[in-house]
Amino acid sequence: MKARIPEATVARLPRYLRCLTDMAHTASTCSSEDLAEAAGVNSAQVRKDVSYLGAQGTRGVGYDHEELRSQIRKALGLTMPHPVIVIGAGNMGTALTNYKGFKTWGFEIVAVLDIDEDRIGSRVDGLTVEPLQNLEKIIAAKNVEIGILATPPAAAQSVADRLTAAGVNSILNLAPTILKTDAEVSVRRVDLSTELGILAFHLQS
Amino acid sequence: MKARIPEATVARLPRYLRCLTDMAHTASTCSSEDLAEAAGVNSAQVRKDVSYLGAQGTRGVGYDHEELRSQIRKALGLTMPHPVIVIGAGNMGTALTNYKGFKTWGFEIVAVLDIDEDRIGSRVDGLTVEPLQNLEKIIAAKNVEIGILATPPAAAQSVADRLTAAGVNSILNLAPTILKTDAEVSVRRVDLSTELGILAFHLQS
Repeated sequence: MKARIPEATVARLPRYLRCLTDMAHTASTCSSEDLAEAAGVNSAQVRKDVSYLGAQGTRGVGYDHEELRSQIRKALGLTMPHPVIVIGAGNMGTALTNYKGFKTWGFEIVAVLDIDEDRIGSRVDGLTVEPLQNLEKIIAAKNVEIGILATPPAAAQSVADRLTAAGVNSILNLAPTILKTDAEVSVRRVDLSTELGILAFHLQS
Repeated sequence: MKARIPEATVARLPRYLRCLTDMAHTASTCSSEDLAEAAGVNSAQVRKDVSYLGAQGTRGVGYDHEELRSQIRKALGLTMPHPVIVIGAGNMGTALTNYKGFKTWGFEIVAVLDIDEDRIGSRVDGLTVEPLQNLEKIIAAKNVEIGILATPPAAAQSVADRLTAAGVNSILNLAPTILKTDAEVSVRRVDLSTELGILAFHLQS
């Protein structure tokens, strides 16, 4: 059933989960209108999206808050822990590793790696920065599922190749470059210049 | 004419620009197939997207590389400089401020602000971290157009309110929270947990 959730819905589900978590202390139910307003979409979209999860709202009342959160977590596969490694211990990699929000969703950063001798051995949020040469060993030892690339752009492709060769087929790419990967590899790319470029377009109007 | 470029095209244009820049040294022309492959979309999409810019490819040859870059930059409004401020001088704000890729697209970080006394006065990439209380003064003095929020989530909304009250209607939000803003405000949100959530979904299949 999960395979039939459209990609655009999948992309909105984490946003709904974020909104529901923000609202969590206020009420035991949540209307599609409330969730739509918080998430910045329309309420028909919310109802359609959550219908893929089998969520049943009550007319005039809305969805059970806890149940809907649980259904979204289940649909996204956030009910089990996901070991994550960060490659690159510069400012961006350090910011990511220190970020507390991942853990509440089950993403646990199990290692941080770098090639820079000055960074290797230093501590980042309770982890010791390890040499990049240990990549494959760490992936195998810690059952790593997701790799976050926070390297300079020139290094990103070779690290991505090593990740996928070692069986890590989910990559979050923060390096400002576009990776070439096989079709079975899921890559999400965060390019801050791209986001600023979109804002610049809207500045003109 | 610019107002008629569809939003989805606008969102792909920075990606094409990134790919063209990566390819820049190799050839003076670029086929829609080459650009499509580099950008990870199909070539019909590329041809449709660039047609909104008035770009004319030559059959069997492709687009003039420099001309296409120039047309994308013009469409996105990247031909003039855009002063940007960063609010939050933690790891994320520091990573952003140090990032060299913004400047090549005309985004110049003109100030970094924080409320933490330990950070105020320290140097980040040639800038001195300034107290948040100076926000409005700096926006006016430096004609700031875009604000990047790299604050803790609890502080993001109040800073966004101050930005928009001071006339900054373009916000890149890196704080893991959803902002409430008026319709005329453009907000782009980068939520790394959301990206990991989407990867987690695909891990299941």
